[in-house]
Amino acid sequence: MPENPQIILIECPDRKGLIHAVTDVLLRHGMNIIQNSEFVDHESGRFYMRTAVEDALDQNRVTGELQAVLPPGASVRFPGREKRRVVILATKEYHCLGDLLLRHAFGDLNAEILAVISNHSELEGLVRRFDIPFSFIPHEGKSRTEHEAAILAELARFDPEYVILAKYMRVLTAGFINRFPSRMINIHHSFLPAFTGANPYRQAYERGVKIIGATAHFVTEKLDEGPIIAQGILPVGHNHTVEDMVQAGRDVEKSVLARAVKLVLDERVFLCGQRTIIFE
Amino acid sequence: MPENPQIILIECPDRKGLIHAVTDVLLRHGMNIIQNSEFVDHESGRFYMRTAVEDALDQNRVTGELQAVLPPGASVRFPGREKRRVVILATKEYHCLGDLLLRHAFGDLNAEILAVISNHSELEGLVRRFDIPFSFIPHEGKSRTEHEAAILAELARFDPEYVILAKYMRVLTAGFINRFPSRMINIHHSFLPAFTGANPYRQAYERGVKIIGATAHFVTEKLDEGPIIAQGILPVGHNHTVEDMVQAGRDVEKSVLARAVKLVLDERVFLCGQRTIIFE
Amino acid sequence: MPENPQIILIECPDRKGLIHAVTDVLLRHGMNIIQNSEFVDHESGRFYMRTAVEDALDQNRVTGELQAVLPPGASVRFPGREKRRVVILATKEYHCLGDLLLRHAFGDLNAEILAVISNHSELEGLVRRFDIPFSFIPHEGKSRTEHEAAILAELARFDPEYVILAKYMRVLTAGFINRFPSRMINIHHSFLPAFTGANPYRQAYERGVKIIGATAHFVTEKLDEGPIIAQGILPVGHNHTVEDMVQAGRDVEKSVLARAVKLVLDERVFLCGQRTIIFE
Amino acid sequence: MPENPQIILIECPDRKGLIHAVTDVLLRHGMNIIQNSEFVDHESGRFYMRTAVEDALDQNRVTGELQAVLPPGASVRFPGREKRRVVILATKEYHCLGDLLLRHAFGDLNAEILAVISNHSELEGLVRRFDIPFSFIPHEGKSRTEHEAAILAELARFDPEYVILAKYMRVLTAGFINRFPSRMINIHHSFLPAFTGANPYRQAYERGVKIIGATAHFVTEKLDEGPIIAQGILPVGHNHTVEDMVQAGRDVEKSVLARAVKLVLDERVFLCGQRTIIFE
Repeated sequence: MPENPQIILIECPDRKGLIHAVTDVLLRHGMNIIQNSEFVDHESGRFYMRTAVEDALDQNRVTGELQAVLPPGASVRFPGREKRRVVILATKEYHCLGDLLLRHAFGDLNAEILAVISNHSELEGLVRRFDIPFSFIPHEGKSRTEHEAAILAELARFDPEYVILAKYMRVLTAGFINRFPSRMINIHHSFLPAFTGANPYRQAYERGVKIIGATAHFVTEKLDEGPIIAQGILPVGHNHTVEDMVQAGRDVEKSVLARAVKLVLDERVFLCGQRTIIFE
Repeated sequence: MPENPQIILIECPDRKGLIHAVTDVLLRHGMNIIQNSEFVDHESGRFYMRTAVEDALDQNRVTGELQAVLPPGASVRFPGREKRRVVILATKEYHCLGDLLLRHAFGDLNAEILAVISNHSELEGLVRRFDIPFSFIPHEGKSRTEHEAAILAELARFDPEYVILAKYMRVLTAGFINRFPSRMINIHHSFLPAFTGANPYRQAYERGVKIIGATAHFVTEKLDEGPIIAQGILPVGHNHTVEDMVQAGRDVEKSVLARAVKLVLDERVFLCGQRTIIFE
Repeated sequence: MPENPQIILIECPDRKGLIHAVTDVLLRHGMNIIQNSEFVDHESGRFYMRTAVEDALDQNRVTGELQAVLPPGASVRFPGREKRRVVILATKEYHCLGDLLLRHAFGDLNAEILAVISNHSELEGLVRRFDIPFSFIPHEGKSRTEHEAAILAELARFDPEYVILAKYMRVLTAGFINRFPSRMINIHHSFLPAFTGANPYRQAYERGVKIIGATAHFVTEKLDEGPIIAQGILPVGHNHTVEDMVQAGRDVEKSVLARAVKLVLDERVFLCGQRTIIFE
Repeated sequence: MPENPQIILIECPDRKGLIHAVTDVLLRHGMNIIQNSEFVDHESGRFYMRTAVEDALDQNRVTGELQAVLPPGASVRFPGREKRRVVILATKEYHCLGDLLLRHAFGDLNAEILAVISNHSELEGLVRRFDIPFSFIPHEGKSRTEHEAAILAELARFDPEYVILAKYMRVLTAGFINRFPSRMINIHHSFLPAFTGANPYRQAYERGVKIIGATAHFVTEKLDEGPIIAQGILPVGHNHTVEDMVQAGRDVEKSVLARAVKLVLDERVFLCGQRTIIFE
């Protein structure tokens, strides 16, 4: 398969003949489809399509022609072929952030990490090792609104396409979240919807679970309820202390977040209400 | 390892020298320990020990000698070496019940299934295929108390050591549950504590989870909160309908219940508050 | 999604415009595509497509029109909407056979099990419990060719579309295998390609593996090398004896075989050289 | 549980009364056992015991007293409570090395990484970011013996207790390997014993496997046959290219190696012929 194909993302109400209509436009432009995925959500009656074509194309003209044959309100997108612009928010824990920095340093992330912002200074040394700008924006002595305003100002400097919460441990307000609709990814330290709220590993320990998990999701106004992108698990037993569970949890958190980030950056994730459609 | 060793189960407050004290008694009786597991729960300060010895022993004498060297209130048990006496409760779904009947028919379950009781008649044909008594005790036209009394009367006929709820879909009262403390095993169709209550697969579908699970647990008064014995999971995706999830769920339910039943019947499970200690 | 859609399976050399050409034909016949999957194997240059349409169609006319727009040598198939006709071969072990019989008895298998054939009589009782014809064809005193001829004669009586080897423990000759190209499914008691040959669990035990597996595959002339349909695993440890591994292996074998059988019977599996394409 | 207990490791031929004899010695020294694990390998008749005690003890005296009550040839070890001294060998791939460096930098590895040695220079930048000495010892222009002699000389400078092969891609001679018996850990890019030899992912792709794996093992003279410490897997499908499998493989490799390294450094792994006993 060609290394860096052009991706076309279409979402619209379902109706008969959509695939034919889309491929008709692409064929007339001489496009060769190298990968194609579609999904119809029969509950909502929505149609989703992700197509990879080999060659560059006149995006404006193709968009216009697609809009002409698709139902009103159709969304047609051509994600850029360059790397995604990303800023990471973190707090004190290194495992998710470090994993992303490593992948980034060796070109395995379809992203340029523009900066890391943290409300603590513990991770500054790690970030500087990778020659990434680190912004320390403490929350002490600030109201939540003031703190978020300071972060937003810093984000504005970098203008990222995506914001990754790599164990950023502050609750965000709706005002902040709505700046990045479907563009902010969080890793939650439990197998959602189990163990929402504080101390999920303590909860898991006391409940005596035999499996712990982690959930990567888009951030929405409702805490811990955003659309799920990826989940993973790890078996545990009675001989795991809470601290052992936390340690084990870190490994599953970092691999689940990395998987979710890759899926999103590779433009494989559609939103369908509270659910995600993932074209792997 | 010998085929059918004698198991000794000890539980008591922890203190220095317990293993030495127990092995001292066993050695004086000429016992050869072929497998030994201990666990100290440092939060509750409880000591748990499961020992398998090769030969038969004088249980009364050994119990007395162990009690003499263990802290007051110690529990010492010698589970019988014969198969456990079991009754299964079911409703309409065949998958968990059928799996247990199959294993039983070929001697792979350390149990004698004495009877199957159901509030519906759908599974009678299946049970009769395996020459097991089937008791149809409908709940229609009965109060909850009357229905449970009828089931208890039927259970009394068989006097089981364990009751297995193989997708028995009626909520049980505390009065019923307390007749079988730590002796009733249920399979719950979700990855507890997620999706308690009704329609867990509908909930899981709407939440867009990427993994579904099942949980086998001891039944306690608090619904869906009994100590967890085993859990399992299965990956799902956006292309799974609710019905697909239900179907997939059945496979994980039946394997999780079978695992839990085996652990319990092989006397490998201790209760430690709301948690289980499992010596595999 | 409609309960029982018409499936269309297409396989041909890849070239530009195939999806458009196929959907063009379907649209002209007024078909509504409810699910669609395609895959291009870029190594072999082969195109694979599985389409589900809502309504019945004139298969001869549609096939002709599709052949007219597809490259020469294209394969176009319309699997019947009725249940698949299946015969199961087994030997002595009950777990895979029993699991399939249970699913079949409750309508969860897209198949009619016409008969079970075995070279031993141990499973006759089980099969008769489910009112399925059981053919005992012992191999003792027969040459391999004579034994296979007897089985083939029995199979001819039932004329199955698929043959499932549910722990059938005799090696089959090329002559036998070639009667059922891509229509015979086997469950192999290891994580192929590890531990081919005899006593895989003994091998796994001695090798000290931490995970055991099972592999369901189409049967081809090369023993243990047919295209893989599904694989599964189970963790094991140093405290598992060989016999424990065999017991654990049974659970993974039966779930892997059930998954593979479901995928094949639902017409979701294409062959691509030694690999399978699976449209889930 | 106390943070940093004293570990005692015992291995000897099995005989009646061993646990009693060991705990007798420990009790006489006033030791409080906080965790205890034993295993008897009934095939070889060997006894393995790992005990954690709360307090420091007179190792020479306790060893002498234990040897006096254990069978001849018993091994009694008291691993140091300080961090293990480790050197890592790598080649060009960053994922396993980077993961270990990250954990080390944040104190999550029970080890001091003394140096990284590589036959290529690609990873020098990464290692220097973490302020760890990097030794570039190219193999070009050297015989295998000369190259190994150069590495051994470098290793001698650091005198490590353990050597970790983090994707070190050169085959080592028996002479080299025997310098580090049970002290050299390798990560193999397949689910051993499947796909030994070169290009395992190419092999896996062509074989059409549905699961890929990784294996961490002690290095012994027989290539790819050392005792297995940990294994992990990841599901793959027909839509994974060889390169996709390599990428996916990296994630399972790094997590499996990290798990094995943790188990070994925490003194939880015994060797039992070609198998490992792991007290988790």
